[in-house]
Amino acid sequence: MDRSTLATRLKKGDRRALSRAITLVESTRADHRAEAVALLADVADPARQALRIGMSGTPGVGKSTFIEAFGKLLTGQGLSVAVLAVDPSSARSGGSILGDKTRMEELSRDPNAFIRPSPSQTELGGVARRTREAIALCEAAGFDVVIVETVGVGQSETMVAQMTDLFVLLLAPGGGDELQGVKRGIMEIADLILINKADGASKRQAEATRADYQGALRLLRKREGDPDGFPQAMAVSAVAREGLAPAWEQMQALAAFRRETGHWGRVRAAQNRHWFEEAVRQGLIHHLVQDPRTRGEMDRLGRAVAAGETPPAAAADEILSRLLTGRGGNPTDAS
Amino acid sequence: MDRSTLATRLKKGDRRALSRAITLVESTRADHRAEAVALLADVADPARQALRIGMSGTPGVGKSTFIEAFGKLLTGQGLSVAVLAVDPSSARSGGSILGDKTRMEELSRDPNAFIRPSPSQTELGGVARRTREAIALCEAAGFDVVIVETVGVGQSETMVAQMTDLFVLLLAPGGGDELQGVKRGIMEIADLILINKADGASKRQAEATRADYQGALRLLRKREGDPDGFPQAMAVSAVAREGLAPAWEQMQALAAFRRETGHWGRVRAAQNRHWFEEAVRQGLIHHLVQDPRTRGEMDRLGRAVAAGETPPAAAADEILSRLLTGRGGNPTDAS
Repeated sequence: MDRSTLATRLKKGDRRALSRAITLVESTRADHRAEAVALLADVADPARQALRIGMSGTPGVGKSTFIEAFGKLLTGQGLSVAVLAVDPSSARSGGSILGDKTRMEELSRDPNAFIRPSPSQTELGGVARRTREAIALCEAAGFDVVIVETVGVGQSETMVAQMTDLFVLLLAPGGGDELQGVKRGIMEIADLILINKADGASKRQAEATRADYQGALRLLRKREGDPDGFPQAMAVSAVAREGLAPAWEQMQALAAFRRETGHWGRVRAAQNRHWFEEAVRQGLIHHLVQDPRTRGEMDRLGRAVAAGETPPAAAADEILSRLLTGRGGNPTDAS
Repeated sequence: MDRSTLATRLKKGDRRALSRAITLVESTRADHRAEAVALLADVADPARQALRIGMSGTPGVGKSTFIEAFGKLLTGQGLSVAVLAVDPSSARSGGSILGDKTRMEELSRDPNAFIRPSPSQTELGGVARRTREAIALCEAAGFDVVIVETVGVGQSETMVAQMTDLFVLLLAPGGGDELQGVKRGIMEIADLILINKADGASKRQAEATRADYQGALRLLRKREGDPDGFPQAMAVSAVAREGLAPAWEQMQALAAFRRETGHWGRVRAAQNRHWFEEAVRQGLIHHLVQDPRTRGEMDRLGRAVAAGETPPAAAADEILSRLLTGRGGNPTDAS
């Protein structure tokens, strides 16, 4: 399939075209990368905006079950839902693969849903680019909601929050000690904390945990651009499919508020700009290790520096003036 | 004074020339920077190696008093000592200026000592370069020992450890709770932990604290290239000038061991190479914000990306192919 056909089909919402396009942005091959960059430009359409929801939770919290039930609720309302997974660890977290279709069997068979498991990639920079571009492709394909699932590691959660509109933290019921386990940084990026497993014997404990978190959230400074009552903690049961509709209503209310106040647009613009600048920085750094001639020069000068023959600054100057030739100005002016 | 005269005087150990040279490497002006890079190359001499000691401690631990007493011990043995300060915080730590000469009055009047307070700079990258280059200048000036003083913030300590041969952590006597306060990362980079104020009423507590830390150090994995018994905890009193000579003996023993095994040379080579690569990365990143033409392009493309008109990857490609023109290869091949 040539790029133009792929772009046309993707924009029509064709699932196979979308899968293929994501595979393309995941590739690190030079020719694939050039195609991917061109494809992303072809399908870019500022008018198509999904609601992007970041979703995190430690293993054992019932994340797959929740996403399946939550996704079915949305498709039941006529919405199309894409689920992307971010797993920066090479070892799969807790033995399970994020976005594993076998764990979301019902949702994966839903014609209005699209589930993409995390690729086996280890570098967070690469994961970030791949995820951000996969989101862009899902939006171009016309999805209403894009859920980006990640594990409870601080770094990947911050990254996901930088590319989504809302951030939902899923927790299990537990004693007061649990509060200590959730890093303050994650509390600060969460818009909604959902205590799962509010059913059967653990229902009362889930409610108590919810109250604990609601109290903790009140101690945090109210964030600019948020209405009263946010961030918020709620108790839900993915298994009993209880509390999901109220949670979805809260997410929509927050999204609507942010759209009305212009906060939504400002955040998206800042996120786009952030990822552009990051792409430039990563591109420069990668050039140092990827370009054979530059790598050769880095190695030659690196040996001279290691031996103490050339000071780091002079060696850096030599590389920089060759790399940035014809750009004018002294490349080490700054720092 | 022209550069050649400055270099000649500096290599003779002239204090005023050294001060002037450090002021030059601290400057961010383009013409100063070019002069500084050239000067560092002029005076580079792999044969002149000082013992570089990183020294850290939280405010109130008596760091200035310790450095003064320790420095006097060394100059009393006929050694020349330079004291450099690293303070990455814009607000001075605990109200005191690191390397404050008025707090090391006796040492600052010593003809064999050179004390340089920390400049008021906020960016850690700039602080790193300035400190590393100031160390190189002190070595070129023939100093036997260079002490690099910093405060108890993890980031600056890691940075100082990356440019020194030994790392000494100075602590105050305290209850067992104190152990919790020292981050594991800092315990892992310390070669010697000195419990200060082992005098008068706090002598017993200092000894107990020392034993606590010695126990904690035993739990850490022995580091490659270290002899038995290191890292080590000792009790000292800067005020009573007790325990300083034994501490200095241990530092010398460790340094001698590392020289003999080749570990010293390997670490220095790796450190040099690290700072060279860091200088290249910083130079590239700074070019993005410093070079007027590049900054203009970044801004123009950044606005298009923020508005959703251009995808981040395509915009990054445009910048990168212009920046790295004539270098061959697709700059976004990687990531």
